[in-house]
Amino acid sequence: MTEKLIRTDKDYIAYLKLNDNPANSLSSEMMGAIQAELTEIDTNPSIRVVVFESASEKIFCSGHSLTEVKGMMSDKDVQAQEKLFAQCSMMMKQIQKISKPAIAKVRGVATAAGNQLVASCDLAYGSEDSRYALPGANIGLFCHTPQVAVSRTIGRKATMEMLLSGQMINSAKAEKIGLINKVVSSADLDSEVEMVCATINQKSAEVIAQGKRSFYRQIEMGLTDAYAATSQNMVKNLELNDANEGISSFLEKRQPEWTND
Amino acid sequence: MTEKLIRTDKDYIAYLKLNDNPANSLSSEMMGAIQAELTEIDTNPSIRVVVFESASEKIFCSGHSLTEVKGMMSDKDVQAQEKLFAQCSMMMKQIQKISKPAIAKVRGVATAAGNQLVASCDLAYGSEDSRYALPGANIGLFCHTPQVAVSRTIGRKATMEMLLSGQMINSAKAEKIGLINKVVSSADLDSEVEMVCATINQKSAEVIAQGKRSFYRQIEMGLTDAYAATSQNMVKNLELNDANEGISSFLEKRQPEWTND
Amino acid sequence: MTEKLIRTDKDYIAYLKLNDNPANSLSSEMMGAIQAELTEIDTNPSIRVVVFESASEKIFCSGHSLTEVKGMMSDKDVQAQEKLFAQCSMMMKQIQKISKPAIAKVRGVATAAGNQLVASCDLAYGSEDSRYALPGANIGLFCHTPQVAVSRTIGRKATMEMLLSGQMINSAKAEKIGLINKVVSSADLDSEVEMVCATINQKSAEVIAQGKRSFYRQIEMGLTDAYAATSQNMVKNLELNDANEGISSFLEKRQPEWTND
Repeated sequence: MTEKLIRTDKDYIAYLKLNDNPANSLSSEMMGAIQAELTEIDTNPSIRVVVFESASEKIFCSGHSLTEVKGMMSDKDVQAQEKLFAQCSMMMKQIQKISKPAIAKVRGVATAAGNQLVASCDLAYGSEDSRYALPGANIGLFCHTPQVAVSRTIGRKATMEMLLSGQMINSAKAEKIGLINKVVSSADLDSEVEMVCATINQKSAEVIAQGKRSFYRQIEMGLTDAYAATSQNMVKNLELNDANEGISSFLEKRQPEWTND
Repeated sequence: MTEKLIRTDKDYIAYLKLNDNPANSLSSEMMGAIQAELTEIDTNPSIRVVVFESASEKIFCSGHSLTEVKGMMSDKDVQAQEKLFAQCSMMMKQIQKISKPAIAKVRGVATAAGNQLVASCDLAYGSEDSRYALPGANIGLFCHTPQVAVSRTIGRKATMEMLLSGQMINSAKAEKIGLINKVVSSADLDSEVEMVCATINQKSAEVIAQGKRSFYRQIEMGLTDAYAATSQNMVKNLELNDANEGISSFLEKRQPEWTND
Repeated sequence: MTEKLIRTDKDYIAYLKLNDNPANSLSSEMMGAIQAELTEIDTNPSIRVVVFESASEKIFCSGHSLTEVKGMMSDKDVQAQEKLFAQCSMMMKQIQKISKPAIAKVRGVATAAGNQLVASCDLAYGSEDSRYALPGANIGLFCHTPQVAVSRTIGRKATMEMLLSGQMINSAKAEKIGLINKVVSSADLDSEVEMVCATINQKSAEVIAQGKRSFYRQIEMGLTDAYAATSQNMVKNLELNDANEGISSFLEKRQPEWTND
């Protein structure tokens, strides 16, 4: 692990703190570190949720390292470029593939692939002074890949405005258009995210894992296929001891005790 | 028809009142009754719109009957489970397949498949004290199938928040995220929905039937296919006497008189 | 070019003013004129953005010419009808296919295919008194084709309400549901749109062209295909001189000078 990414586990929460001042960029080194942590978190039974945050109050994540990209351009190294964007796409998809919910806790600006990171997380909460942009066109490199995550999270007109203007939107607008779940004062942001994590921790880990998997699978299907797939997910979910315990405890008006299987 | 579902026709409106206290659950019996009514309504020339409502002010619909599901689990009856979820999916799709618009008029809480019912209706109006949740994970059974309808109606971040937290959202938030069309005071909810029904009743039944069918068909297609299909829908619509009457009356500045063919 | 469509180029902005009083309808003549202008604009190196506006303060665009449609009905000329809707779909797709951003600047009402025009533009700004409707069902001709563009821009419940009620929504609601980017006072609308155009003009024309193309391509794909396609778009974008200039100027903290290649 690089010091550019600091992982701190508090109880069942794995915090991944981007710590590469000043830009907190998604260099291949940073993405490799995130991928390695996500792989570990995916199967770590102690961890229930992963939270992305930044060491800096000013920049949550600024996207690709332009120094790194510039080097690949100077070398005319197309293979290295392809590898870089493949790695980034793989990491964004991994966030949705892992069995634990991922939350973006945003202070400062989230731009380009940093904004893609926010859009790719299952949930996102931002401080009042958080800001968001898809500014690639400003520097001659359109946010082609970031738009994939963003246009599947918010509406077309809002996405296009961010892409074509390259300008920052504030936290209130980000909430309004659905890029983040909620704006929270900077003072309360940590505890708000902790509370969200606590609601997730109250559930069965295996149920959440099955649910997250079924969500991203069904959303790419037509309606009939989606219902066929998720009906099978329901039957499979009912085979779990935790389904039996959950439904029994509900009918018996007591708290459930999960065994996570 | 079971007394658990009370159908009352007022003029051109078929009210389907869920009346299975206290939970108004979608037992297979309830769903069978709804399916039978929707089948009748689909071809009943007197009915122009169907409105789902509840006898209870506290619970609009709580989703599957947990007692019924628990029984199928105890019996390890996988076939019965598959049949149950297939029936539910079929009913939700039937709401969109019938030729008449379906409206959810929500008082109290709409949870799990009850929330799926709200999302599956063409339109939804909720009282100020209506509330909405996808709480399956709370009882060890993720809302796999309800998420299909909800994630096609509201944004991903909002859907995920409901799925992972399992918590209630209030009516204002439901309107904000697009789960319901409008929040109305409880005193005015009935008359508001009646007014919406009245606007539908002013249209040609056949035109609405063709339009509802084309809406759900095109929304699953790519852009080019969607335009090819709906262009054909336009030409077919123009063959109707009501298209001739509608356009003629508009050009002649008089009220149209529909023959619904 | 017909006088029904007035094109005025101001610097890098091509204004297309609908000027067919009183309805500003999308007759085949009007659509042909728009198509011809868009074809010219697409490859005109002086033009960076196209703005749709209306000569009338009351009607932005009322959709198809009902007189024209009525004539085709009286003649039972199905081929002419098919040709008309094919032309309209082609024009709406052309708006998204051209290499320059298209903006709807809306004063007055935008209805039926006029609303489809607003939804099909990349961006849309409306005056406080602008209004929007999908009123086809009112005159016996459902908005089958307009719904294609609208249902891909705003949520299902909002689209269905417009389709089934046929009623006008005001500018505030249009912004809230995402049909337009922003409501602006009528006095400030021109300058607001000019400012948006200015932000676009600050970017490289070739970068915007590649980005607009990749946006509409990826949005129809599944996630994995979308990332594969846009990763290739990133690599191709990096081959541009403007990417080199943009990234270099950013790292060197100076203004970029685009060569648009």
